[in-house]
Amino acid sequence: MTSVITMLTDYGLEDGFVAACHGVIIKIAPESRIIDVCHMIPAGDVRRGAAVLAQTVPYLPEGIHVAVVDPAVGTARRAVAVRAGGRVFVGPDNGLLSWAVHAVGGADAAYELTNEELFLTPVSRTFHGRDIFAPVAAHLARGRPLTDVGPELPVDRLVVLPEPTSRVRDGAVEGEVLSVDHYGNVQLSIKADDLAALGVRNGDTLAVQLGRRQLSVPYRETFAAVPPGDVVAFADSAGLVALAVNSGDAAERLGLPPGAHVRLSPAVHAG
Amino acid sequence: MTSVITMLTDYGLEDGFVAACHGVIIKIAPESRIIDVCHMIPAGDVRRGAAVLAQTVPYLPEGIHVAVVDPAVGTARRAVAVRAGGRVFVGPDNGLLSWAVHAVGGADAAYELTNEELFLTPVSRTFHGRDIFAPVAAHLARGRPLTDVGPELPVDRLVVLPEPTSRVRDGAVEGEVLSVDHYGNVQLSIKADDLAALGVRNGDTLAVQLGRRQLSVPYRETFAAVPPGDVVAFADSAGLVALAVNSGDAAERLGLPPGAHVRLSPAVHAG
Amino acid sequence: MTSVITMLTDYGLEDGFVAACHGVIIKIAPESRIIDVCHMIPAGDVRRGAAVLAQTVPYLPEGIHVAVVDPAVGTARRAVAVRAGGRVFVGPDNGLLSWAVHAVGGADAAYELTNEELFLTPVSRTFHGRDIFAPVAAHLARGRPLTDVGPELPVDRLVVLPEPTSRVRDGAVEGEVLSVDHYGNVQLSIKADDLAALGVRNGDTLAVQLGRRQLSVPYRETFAAVPPGDVVAFADSAGLVALAVNSGDAAERLGLPPGAHVRLSPAVHAG
Repeated sequence: MTSVITMLTDYGLEDGFVAACHGVIIKIAPESRIIDVCHMIPAGDVRRGAAVLAQTVPYLPEGIHVAVVDPAVGTARRAVAVRAGGRVFVGPDNGLLSWAVHAVGGADAAYELTNEELFLTPVSRTFHGRDIFAPVAAHLARGRPLTDVGPELPVDRLVVLPEPTSRVRDGAVEGEVLSVDHYGNVQLSIKADDLAALGVRNGDTLAVQLGRRQLSVPYRETFAAVPPGDVVAFADSAGLVALAVNSGDAAERLGLPPGAHVRLSPAVHAG
Repeated sequence: MTSVITMLTDYGLEDGFVAACHGVIIKIAPESRIIDVCHMIPAGDVRRGAAVLAQTVPYLPEGIHVAVVDPAVGTARRAVAVRAGGRVFVGPDNGLLSWAVHAVGGADAAYELTNEELFLTPVSRTFHGRDIFAPVAAHLARGRPLTDVGPELPVDRLVVLPEPTSRVRDGAVEGEVLSVDHYGNVQLSIKADDLAALGVRNGDTLAVQLGRRQLSVPYRETFAAVPPGDVVAFADSAGLVALAVNSGDAAERLGLPPGAHVRLSPAVHAG
Repeated sequence: MTSVITMLTDYGLEDGFVAACHGVIIKIAPESRIIDVCHMIPAGDVRRGAAVLAQTVPYLPEGIHVAVVDPAVGTARRAVAVRAGGRVFVGPDNGLLSWAVHAVGGADAAYELTNEELFLTPVSRTFHGRDIFAPVAAHLARGRPLTDVGPELPVDRLVVLPEPTSRVRDGAVEGEVLSVDHYGNVQLSIKADDLAALGVRNGDTLAVQLGRRQLSVPYRETFAAVPPGDVVAFADSAGLVALAVNSGDAAERLGLPPGAHVRLSPAVHAG
């Protein structure tokens, strides 16, 4: 059976960095299939990488999931392999893997990557994707036991990013801007189910509080349910509330940086 | 034999959207091979997507060709599978597939995608690529009969985009700006064969009318046949006339939006 | 055994050009595996393409390595296949292949691509990647003898780009800006081993002469070893000295175009 190895990085596509990783994997595990999750994570943006990985992994076949967004490469941070949900995640221990691990049920076991037999040597200081993470993933895909990669770590010692908040309080749901996608849609950390629990239904209007600004925004099934140019809120494909501009760019229109606080409640008057 | 599934979308490469579709396909049809046609179609640009698909499909192996440029997702538009030229095209019924279907000889049969057994459920409102088109394509690639996807549609009920024009009239050929490629080359809807029928040969000069502007442009075999910085016309790899600037960006230089009317004729005086 | 074909071009990802090449390859050699090295080489930048290919090939499985950065397509330049280091390189004879050929030990043999049986005909004037290089590579991957592609060429007749310089002289190493990567890191042609031969060690400070400017720059193991915003020099994953700004863009900060002359020496006083 063909093993699957997936990759997510901030390497971009303007160099041969991703290809070097693919080459290393294919030389060790020629029978493996590689799925590129995303290589356009903004440089060093661990949080964005964590969000994309967590939202994509449920749709990927079980396999070895390599993620490398690694601003602290070459410093004292650890490199780890984490078993969770029938999968193995491989990457720096900086929280990048933590939301995906959580999404598939939490870590069963974790190991530090120290066994140099599995690396490409000499290991560069700055390209651990090619010299550590890719070859380790390839060896695991070939059937090397996870215990071979290095010493076991207690799973509660793994670095975790704070879970995005979706807090129901006083007739509203509070959260933050989690992510902005390719279209400029602003994905919030707020769960559509939490809005539903407040009695909000498609067709209603939301009062959206963004810092000190307040907007009335229709809550619809899809961004195409309002005229082009209008702001709309909807439940996106990850079950989170998103703000969009039909045929436009909500992130630009609303000026919302990642992490900005957002509070949604049913509008008192229909918009 | 390995089945081939191809994908064209406007999802971009900055998220895990394409990977989620790949994952869904691989989970259902692990023996299939996926070819990415293009994922950088500008958001919602059905016409551009239709042009890229039509110009690429003749070079792709026969298979299941998924295309998703779908600004009306979640509204009343249909999702369809169209059999044409020994291939099956899967996507929204908004004209996106129509030029490719035409390019391979026209539709033999069409079916609406309604059979939820073939979908990922619950189907999201906005990510039909992942929840409808990719899984349907994967099931078809595994040998599921096309008739299983839903009720047959008369092929003349499919939405078609108007064919790009190349009209020979009064000693000139009239058409429009079809597409701008990665290099800034402006691809016209005008067929090189129509220019040839007017007696135009490589080495001649064209009178190019762009709206109210008129230019003299050399017609050559390739964009490199004029000095760097010069405008040149040539027959491109799709058999259409293109305008380029050697080592430059013709779309920027000439200010030509898609759909702009263009008229080419042999220049009276050699330029 | 699955044959490997790799591709590097300046085609970009906004069209179906890369997919057309993949399709042509898969139709001729369906059992082959394709690795995309990079398709974002700036248009016509043969030197950048040569650098990315040379730095990536050592990590790729042996196979047929297609590279197409071809500003002179359709003019009198030759198309060639070059055997070197157990691999075959296929592309225009404009120096694009020369650094990679050199990196794997130099050319054993070279052939001009003239056998039209191996092409897609009629061959377009501008898309030789699809009509010449991809199909030739696919036939070679299927076992077609290299001698079938056309007449042999003396390897010393191949066009070569001047090797990037790293010259040790008068207690300094002189070289040039070779390449700028995705992060804005400025890769120099200067070998880390040449700096080491001058007695420079991690932890030292370099006197960096860029044209008429002089900077003191710490030489460290990795870009993360200085505070964010600081300039740092380090040995990169290709064994060359690079200048970076931790969490920043060195190319922008330092204003260094490719080819700019750079001279590095140990600083007289610790910075």
